[in-house]
Amino acid sequence: MHAKHEGVLSIKSEFEVHDKQDLGELYTPGVAVLSRMLEKNPDLRYRYTMSGKLVALITDGSAVLGLGDIGPRAGLPVVEGKALLYKDMADVDAIPLAVQQVPVDDFVDTVTNISHSFAGIHLEDIAAPRCFEIVEKLSARLDIPVYHDDQEGTAIVILAALINAAKVVGKDLSGLRVLINGAGASGIATARLLRAYGITDLILVDVHGCVTAGDDTYNAYQRAMAGSGRGLRPGAPLHEAIQGCDVFVGLSVADVLTPEDVASMADDPIVFALANPKPEIDPRLVPGTKIAVFATGSSQYANQVNNVLAYPGLFKGLLDSGLKRVTPALEEAVAIGLAGLVESPKADRVIPGVFDPGVVDVVSQAVLDYVEKGNKQKEREA
Amino acid sequence: MHAKHEGVLSIKSEFEVHDKQDLGELYTPGVAVLSRMLEKNPDLRYRYTMSGKLVALITDGSAVLGLGDIGPRAGLPVVEGKALLYKDMADVDAIPLAVQQVPVDDFVDTVTNISHSFAGIHLEDIAAPRCFEIVEKLSARLDIPVYHDDQEGTAIVILAALINAAKVVGKDLSGLRVLINGAGASGIATARLLRAYGITDLILVDVHGCVTAGDDTYNAYQRAMAGSGRGLRPGAPLHEAIQGCDVFVGLSVADVLTPEDVASMADDPIVFALANPKPEIDPRLVPGTKIAVFATGSSQYANQVNNVLAYPGLFKGLLDSGLKRVTPALEEAVAIGLAGLVESPKADRVIPGVFDPGVVDVVSQAVLDYVEKGNKQKEREA
Repeated sequence: MHAKHEGVLSIKSEFEVHDKQDLGELYTPGVAVLSRMLEKNPDLRYRYTMSGKLVALITDGSAVLGLGDIGPRAGLPVVEGKALLYKDMADVDAIPLAVQQVPVDDFVDTVTNISHSFAGIHLEDIAAPRCFEIVEKLSARLDIPVYHDDQEGTAIVILAALINAAKVVGKDLSGLRVLINGAGASGIATARLLRAYGITDLILVDVHGCVTAGDDTYNAYQRAMAGSGRGLRPGAPLHEAIQGCDVFVGLSVADVLTPEDVASMADDPIVFALANPKPEIDPRLVPGTKIAVFATGSSQYANQVNNVLAYPGLFKGLLDSGLKRVTPALEEAVAIGLAGLVESPKADRVIPGVFDPGVVDVVSQAVLDYVEKGNKQKEREA
Repeated sequence: MHAKHEGVLSIKSEFEVHDKQDLGELYTPGVAVLSRMLEKNPDLRYRYTMSGKLVALITDGSAVLGLGDIGPRAGLPVVEGKALLYKDMADVDAIPLAVQQVPVDDFVDTVTNISHSFAGIHLEDIAAPRCFEIVEKLSARLDIPVYHDDQEGTAIVILAALINAAKVVGKDLSGLRVLINGAGASGIATARLLRAYGITDLILVDVHGCVTAGDDTYNAYQRAMAGSGRGLRPGAPLHEAIQGCDVFVGLSVADVLTPEDVASMADDPIVFALANPKPEIDPRLVPGTKIAVFATGSSQYANQVNNVLAYPGLFKGLLDSGLKRVTPALEEAVAIGLAGLVESPKADRVIPGVFDPGVVDVVSQAVLDYVEKGNKQKEREA
């Protein structure tokens, strides 16, 4: 399928040039009028050129799916696939770009240098901790939205699923004890968003065990998201840290969560085992494992936590509203909107299906509502 | 027209995603198979991703049409217009990119860093002498074709027109005395191609007069293309240098060539007055000016020298053949092919019309023939 057309995307002309008159309007001398307008007011590029709607879908191929660092070119099929989903699902125009794995500042310079060509930057499959610095620096330099799907996209969909899962088990969200296993891009971003949402009892675990604020084994981004630990010793392993937790969020690797771990959790445990393609635990293979709400990243189970629930509608909303920043407050608003699409949450339905009608609309509308609310707030303050 | 669609281009999906099975094939887990293949053999990107057909149409807006340095954003309408012509005329997929006016090495780094996303680089509207260094350095670093339309495109079409113009006036091409007025990107590239083609009696003139090899008023690229001067003093003005010339090629500004200048040329003068939108001389305004063959850059006259005659077919040929370099030998082959499309050259028809049938085919075929000839040559030598 990817080979049939040299990829799954092409460029579409919105205008047919038939004769000299067309050429004169579309190109020289007609185009000179437009260029002169843009010289005076460069922001008119948003209105009069493709750059006003085009999202750059950028990878360096350093952390692709479960494949790891496979290089920028091998990362292309993933960003091209996502660009196609943007178009098919939300009519958003995105172009796949592979960028060399140069040092962070060079990477930021490169993206900055081409940024006038785009209305937004969607980063994809860039390894941590490099990705954190890249997002920070690009956000500071550019006046268009910068979004890292492995971070914000994952965090949004997890929060949406968790909002509904808490309803299913009848627990108060802000009182949940949540363990996030995997302190990479998505783990850190999820911790950040859950904390912003008011979930304070968070435990972050990675290969060296429980992350604590003073543990130099972990980087600054990981340490900043370390929970209180509630008496856990630094480096305490998963099977210790999981005891008494209400929620397990796995953003790690297959089969790291045992039935014994689940048994040691609080009543009605919520388990999001999001490793792909094989989850952190597969209850179908372990009879008797009692999980109240189970979600994975795979379409083979109910409750698929898939970023495609977020990014097409999110960018549609960003482009339609002109919003220039993706902030935790916006992510919360989107997660609440997405969760609300499930009218009566049940154990096997805490998140909409990828192809459910209304997903893109509800997400993009959440962005528009968020912007309008902010505008009204500003009016009141003025 | 540019505003109606936020520009004149959009992204086209070649595949509709309807259900989970489509998603599994197009995206994860199906895409992982493809990514793994590309990890082992990154060159498969040409076959299996959009990068195998996509041309980056890059400007920094430093020398746009007759408008000069108007900045990267204001340069966007021009590259977007050309991208549309690529698609409409030759079904070539090109994406417009505005790159900041950073120093040459940073510019080269930026384009290099994103080059794995593309099958070719088309540079546009980049000022001289910066453009010469950029083309040299990019060509040395990249394994995809690098082409600067203001240089190679202009040179190709001028050579094609000159081949036929020489036939019209019954003169031998290699014996022509040619004056090129304007030693910018297109003037230098035209001098280079005409010389490669065997026209040795060349005079290059710019604002400081005749360019000579030892004249530090001019940069190294200009001095390298200085003709013998045939006894002309350094800095001799146009009205001196033009005396006795067979051909005037104007790549400069409006109205610099006077009727007296034309009168001082050899018999049956050939005048290509290519300044846009107003030519270097307008014989309609100067009755009695005797020009044997007259060409301009405008569609208002016969013989429009327009780069659109070259680049769509050229890149179609490059992409179809897999050729990685644009060399003077290739440019000659294309110019000969383009000239050959005019069956019986006449004074008012030395170059095909922009919308003549067969232009793209003859140009792309010239590239394919050139590659085949080269391959046969290699076989003979082996």
